[in-house]
Amino acid sequence: MCSENPGYNTLLNYTFLLFIIQQIGLVKVQSVWPLPQTCITSTERYQLKPQTFSFGYRGQLTEQHSCSVLDAAFKRYFSILFPDYPSGNDTLQFTENEVFTLTISLDHHDCEGYPNQDSSERYKLNVFAGRASLNAETVWGALRGLESFSQLVYQDDVGSYYINKTYIEDFPQFKYRGILLDTSRHYLPVPAILKTLDAMAYSKFNVFHWHIVDDPSFPYQSHTFPELSSKGAFHPVTHIYTQSDVRRVISHARMRGIRVLPEFDSPGHTKSWGKGQPELLTPCYRGGNPSGAFGPVNPTLSSTYQFMAALFKEVATVFPDSYIHLGGDEVDFSCWYVSNPYVRAFMQKMGFGLDFSKLEAFYIEKILNITLALRKTSIVWQDVFDYHERRKSLSVVEVWKQGCYLCEVRRVVKAGLRVILASPWYLDQPGPTHNWARYYNVWPLAFKGSEKQKQLVIGGEVCLWGEYVDATNLSPRLWPRASAAAERLWSNEKQTSSVDRAFPRLQEFRCKLLRRGIQVEPLYVGYCKHEYQSV
Amino acid sequence: MCSENPGYNTLLNYTFLLFIIQQIGLVKVQSVWPLPQTCITSTERYQLKPQTFSFGYRGQLTEQHSCSVLDAAFKRYFSILFPDYPSGNDTLQFTENEVFTLTISLDHHDCEGYPNQDSSERYKLNVFAGRASLNAETVWGALRGLESFSQLVYQDDVGSYYINKTYIEDFPQFKYRGILLDTSRHYLPVPAILKTLDAMAYSKFNVFHWHIVDDPSFPYQSHTFPELSSKGAFHPVTHIYTQSDVRRVISHARMRGIRVLPEFDSPGHTKSWGKGQPELLTPCYRGGNPSGAFGPVNPTLSSTYQFMAALFKEVATVFPDSYIHLGGDEVDFSCWYVSNPYVRAFMQKMGFGLDFSKLEAFYIEKILNITLALRKTSIVWQDVFDYHERRKSLSVVEVWKQGCYLCEVRRVVKAGLRVILASPWYLDQPGPTHNWARYYNVWPLAFKGSEKQKQLVIGGEVCLWGEYVDATNLSPRLWPRASAAAERLWSNEKQTSSVDRAFPRLQEFRCKLLRRGIQVEPLYVGYCKHEYQSV
Repeated sequence: MCSENPGYNTLLNYTFLLFIIQQIGLVKVQSVWPLPQTCITSTERYQLKPQTFSFGYRGQLTEQHSCSVLDAAFKRYFSILFPDYPSGNDTLQFTENEVFTLTISLDHHDCEGYPNQDSSERYKLNVFAGRASLNAETVWGALRGLESFSQLVYQDDVGSYYINKTYIEDFPQFKYRGILLDTSRHYLPVPAILKTLDAMAYSKFNVFHWHIVDDPSFPYQSHTFPELSSKGAFHPVTHIYTQSDVRRVISHARMRGIRVLPEFDSPGHTKSWGKGQPELLTPCYRGGNPSGAFGPVNPTLSSTYQFMAALFKEVATVFPDSYIHLGGDEVDFSCWYVSNPYVRAFMQKMGFGLDFSKLEAFYIEKILNITLALRKTSIVWQDVFDYHERRKSLSVVEVWKQGCYLCEVRRVVKAGLRVILASPWYLDQPGPTHNWARYYNVWPLAFKGSEKQKQLVIGGEVCLWGEYVDATNLSPRLWPRASAAAERLWSNEKQTSSVDRAFPRLQEFRCKLLRRGIQVEPLYVGYCKHEYQSV
Repeated sequence: MCSENPGYNTLLNYTFLLFIIQQIGLVKVQSVWPLPQTCITSTERYQLKPQTFSFGYRGQLTEQHSCSVLDAAFKRYFSILFPDYPSGNDTLQFTENEVFTLTISLDHHDCEGYPNQDSSERYKLNVFAGRASLNAETVWGALRGLESFSQLVYQDDVGSYYINKTYIEDFPQFKYRGILLDTSRHYLPVPAILKTLDAMAYSKFNVFHWHIVDDPSFPYQSHTFPELSSKGAFHPVTHIYTQSDVRRVISHARMRGIRVLPEFDSPGHTKSWGKGQPELLTPCYRGGNPSGAFGPVNPTLSSTYQFMAALFKEVATVFPDSYIHLGGDEVDFSCWYVSNPYVRAFMQKMGFGLDFSKLEAFYIEKILNITLALRKTSIVWQDVFDYHERRKSLSVVEVWKQGCYLCEVRRVVKAGLRVILASPWYLDQPGPTHNWARYYNVWPLAFKGSEKQKQLVIGGEVCLWGEYVDATNLSPRLWPRASAAAERLWSNEKQTSSVDRAFPRLQEFRCKLLRRGIQVEPLYVGYCKHEYQSV
């Protein structure tokens, strides 16, 4: 069912009637995943024909005659709406009243920009009397509405397309709904990233958190420091992201209302950086001499900060999003601690004693200042919040550790900082698909706190770390489990608290994704009508 | 390294030298997975050029001029040997001494038959003085040798192909090395099955155990009982295996030396059978009346055995293998037990008391007699062995339950029956890829028993049940973990007892599979030189 809104008690009898009709197979009501905030549907249905269906603009858009983001979306969604429609030329024979138009109006004409943290994704969709209208505040909201519209269209047994009379008012529960891909532990070819962006849009995710570099490899080809990838990537030509690759990813994401959040994690997780930037990492010592091994970024040298400033200056330009992820997790102190005499001298000079977390905080503070000067909002992993004394410098904290993650969320919001929750959505861990319910049953606001504090929880993120994931298994490992998280982050909790009611809707959504060519693994025994044509 | 044979101590210094040379990158010695029984390799290498490479016949084969199985294998392996070779026409310019020929001789010319349980897979491969010879007792052994040969060929940095001087004598440790696919819980399209057969051949698996029907669906289109699939399949047209599909699978398997073992599991796991064969299943009762639910196949009616005899007669003809799997696992007694008055009357008449396992044994005995009359060797799941009193009727028992599975293996061989071990290789359970070591560290003969008893352990089987598996995730769920089992079943245990030594070899093998277009998930962080061209 489209609507599970408990506010529609007056519709009870009608709903029951609908149930009866559904049971005898006369009407098939399509569900939308993630569930809209308000969705009322009826048995009245209208036929859609690919030959006579059209998208139209209304209001300001009509005058401008064009909105590149929407024009491209119309092309994509036409193929999604009518998967059986042949690509060849058709003779157009139709009468005026067979025309079905979806007209779109925007409150703000912002077709040339990028989505950002404050972008409204609110939309209203009204399908009635043989036509449909979609209104949104922004073009990004219109994209969400188009997605919902596409999920409402269905085919009957002879292949004709229909949509039921439907009214939707919708907006996301959380503004930040991310997926992290890790392109350092395994290189992911650009088409695999683009395909993931497609699938993200179908589940209304809006942030691609690109954990682009880490210990094993540095695939980002920097124009300021080309040796970082030529020496630090798995292969200097075949396993890198060129500037043009990055632009392609950002553009593909933007067209789907998805932000690209780059992460350049430091001072730990940087082994691969050291290959192309020899002085950057801390040399580890053994018995008074360098052992040949390297630790985290060396926080004692001014050259470190010159390099970082130059690198982040480039990154800030290449990635248009106003957020940047600085990492800061899992810094291994042993190399600093054990013996490096320069590090120890620096510690003494700074009065840090033997508290290496102070050294780490010193480093992060410097990096935070660099990104602040670049007018970027920084995100850090919770480690930084945990050891950093000057928490005022922080903006957004991503909670990732297992255990009582809501305790940590509470600590962060109490400190007045914003939170992104990742802990319960570490999907790189394989598991039987039926544990999708585990990802569904999370509620990020289930902690004691004021309304104002809860508003600091800006969203959540599915993390697909790369130790055991590459392009061979990315898609079935991510989907459909990530879609469970997507509904949690988009929909009203009260309307989506039942796993049992979600199950058939998720199964139906999985079949839709499969038909769109996304390799989504099965939830349980069964089949989809169209399951292997495009996978 | 090709050889880890501890018998070659005299080669120690030479091996050390080779190690040094490898370290400085002059020679790249290719490994073969699963590890051959004997494999000696040298630094001497020969260049192979696609334009001048050829396969040739020797001995009896020369006179016959043709062996369809090998002719087809030559075509497949040519593309595998030279993946960069363009498909267009090349100008052939070469001198006599640039020609490299792999000549093949067979002791028995059996190109027209099917592989069977007694087929020898032994082969000798000798690569020296710029040519190679492969001798095998049977065509199936020759296929194994071709696979090993293909794994020995490598490319240098500029893309030239080489093979090192190598001598291999090889045979499998176990004669039955199977993979079970379940096409009832999810329908697997024929191309997904064929692709799995390709990958099986690369790991030298030799039995495709086709768990073709079960409770959820009956996709096998029987010509004797067409309603079984027209009513029992997920869809009567798109989700069935026609006779021609089945022939295609059997033929594809045969060309790769793989047997196709059909399983028609009964009396449990048969819900889907009941749709097309109304009287077949036991009607369950509640309060003295039929409840509308159905239990296992009804063992009390003679019509049941007439149906089964006709079905198995067809199956015995369609599937050429001399083995047939009868299932017999997990029979739910509740429907028999609770109330069905006819079943209880039958129990009384037969003097079974309240021991429903006697009823089950009665049924299985009838089915065993049917297959015996069809001259098929039957395999049953261990449940049948556990409850069956007349164990003499049994031939092969497949051990699948968790717990002390070697205790069960021991019980079965003590009863003089043959065993296939599946318990430790239930790969449908997802897990991080690094648990491949769990599948590698199994040793099926690690129980107390005589040599004669151990010979009754004919092999092992990887089971990929279908609850959470379909074509979207089959391949990365199966590979490379199944390859770990493959080496355990093919190679000498003493030479393959170290996970640490196996790891880099398995990584290299995974890269080879990836280049051949098999979607094999990664073992850990890293990359392959050619990893995404064909996946």
